[in-house]
Amino acid sequence: QQQTNEQNSNTLSLKIASILEKTYYDVNSHPTESLDWFNVLVAQIISQFRDEALLSNNLINSFDEILSDKSSSNALPDWLDKIKITEIDIGDDYPIFSNCRILEKPNKNLEAKIDVDLSDTLTLGIETKLLVNKPKFMSAVLPIALSVSIVRFSGCLSVSLISTSDDEFLKLYNQRKSEKDKKDKTEFTGGAALMFFFSQDYRLEFQIKSLIGSRSKLENVPKIGYLIEEKLRGWFIERCVEPRFQLIPLPSLWPSKQNVRVPANSSTPTNTNNPT
Amino acid sequence: QQQTNEQNSNTLSLKIASILEKTYYDVNSHPTESLDWFNVLVAQIISQFRDEALLSNNLINSFDEILSDKSSSNALPDWLDKIKITEIDIGDDYPIFSNCRILEKPNKNLEAKIDVDLSDTLTLGIETKLLVNKPKFMSAVLPIALSVSIVRFSGCLSVSLISTSDDEFLKLYNQRKSEKDKKDKTEFTGGAALMFFFSQDYRLEFQIKSLIGSRSKLENVPKIGYLIEEKLRGWFIERCVEPRFQLIPLPSLWPSKQNVRVPANSSTPTNTNNPT
Repeated sequence: QQQTNEQNSNTLSLKIASILEKTYYDVNSHPTESLDWFNVLVAQIISQFRDEALLSNNLINSFDEILSDKSSSNALPDWLDKIKITEIDIGDDYPIFSNCRILEKPNKNLEAKIDVDLSDTLTLGIETKLLVNKPKFMSAVLPIALSVSIVRFSGCLSVSLISTSDDEFLKLYNQRKSEKDKKDKTEFTGGAALMFFFSQDYRLEFQIKSLIGSRSKLENVPKIGYLIEEKLRGWFIERCVEPRFQLIPLPSLWPSKQNVRVPANSSTPTNTNNPT
Repeated sequence: QQQTNEQNSNTLSLKIASILEKTYYDVNSHPTESLDWFNVLVAQIISQFRDEALLSNNLINSFDEILSDKSSSNALPDWLDKIKITEIDIGDDYPIFSNCRILEKPNKNLEAKIDVDLSDTLTLGIETKLLVNKPKFMSAVLPIALSVSIVRFSGCLSVSLISTSDDEFLKLYNQRKSEKDKKDKTEFTGGAALMFFFSQDYRLEFQIKSLIGSRSKLENVPKIGYLIEEKLRGWFIERCVEPRFQLIPLPSLWPSKQNVRVPANSSTPTNTNNPT
């Protein structure tokens, strides 16, 4: 067993050394590269997604789903009424990717690290009711109005290639994927996939305005806004922050495999921890 | 009608100007960008595809399919027997992408242009028989042995974003796609896709060795090799050279659409002219 592992690790080292040599990339001395062209393409894609979001009610439906999710560890506390969305701002700026560099890690595939920076205002405004259950059940119902804005995101994105037939990967993936995903075994019968995640030192800044009280006397209460912030942050961490990751399966070159039917969502980033 | 077109074109111009401004990209003065990190990732992907090709007989099956394709305009002439593959070399080098720049074209989305250069030896060795039908049917059968190598490719790759719900795109696509693809209408119910093609001034160099004659006296005959070269070149032009293109649909952000089932191959580059 140990010898096989050592052999595999040697094979991988040789393969990586050969790739770096043939692509003229020295991981120790290569300067970081700009991605301005990539920023333009991504901005175009986001611009189109925004158009789509405005056309149908896709965005409101998605947020409704997250906020009313009662099964996970992020479920809303029972002293909070159903949340109604009153305002959505999907922003009008674009992320800036920069400083791309290739890292070599022992016994792993090469990894591209890219700095991502987004200064935009993505706002979600909601209304709900605070259900005061003490001294007795429903002794008071306080209306709440608040808005949560994401005003800044910056982080370091990792992109690497993995083989979905790799034993180590499958073990990791099976531990993390949801019950629902377990039915979709077909999507990982070999083949390559791109793995994405953000380093843990990401920065995600919110701006929160919260009003609470009787209809006539609404007061600012930071605590409710904080709960919402934590819920959104948790949603992000559970999906995109190391050691969690997103996967995009690469199309196979071999036509012989193309007749297998898989769910439409297999080409969307795969959720690695969605315990719904 | 004309006024609507003009409005659409103005909206697109404004959108593109805004994207370029917000991503700090001036199409007139921005220097071309290197893609060394991208070369490393692509090399890793190709390396993995090569491993897969060697493991199963994927590659031989694919070539067999192309060479025995009798339905298209590239069908083999009837004086050539079935082709048997004797040698395959899948190469050991990687393409080098460089000089990436964004171009603005009137009434179109922005386009990224990337130079691609590949110096590698991809060899296909075959055996077949020349069926001489004059003066009478099958009056002679001459064995042929030849090998075709692709030794150099260089070209300019265009990458752009298109909306698959765009009328103009759908018209173009419907004209070009095969009968088989027409069943898969679901994959283009809106949504964005990346469009790829090579400019017509690409360069594709072959090296051909051809032997013909009786078993004992094989002579070099360039004509047969040329036929094979034209077949391979035709295959490439029909799929990847302007005005033909390949498409990779982008995953939708909206979970509400994810339960629609589409064929597994919808995430592979879509063939725009495959009249099988």
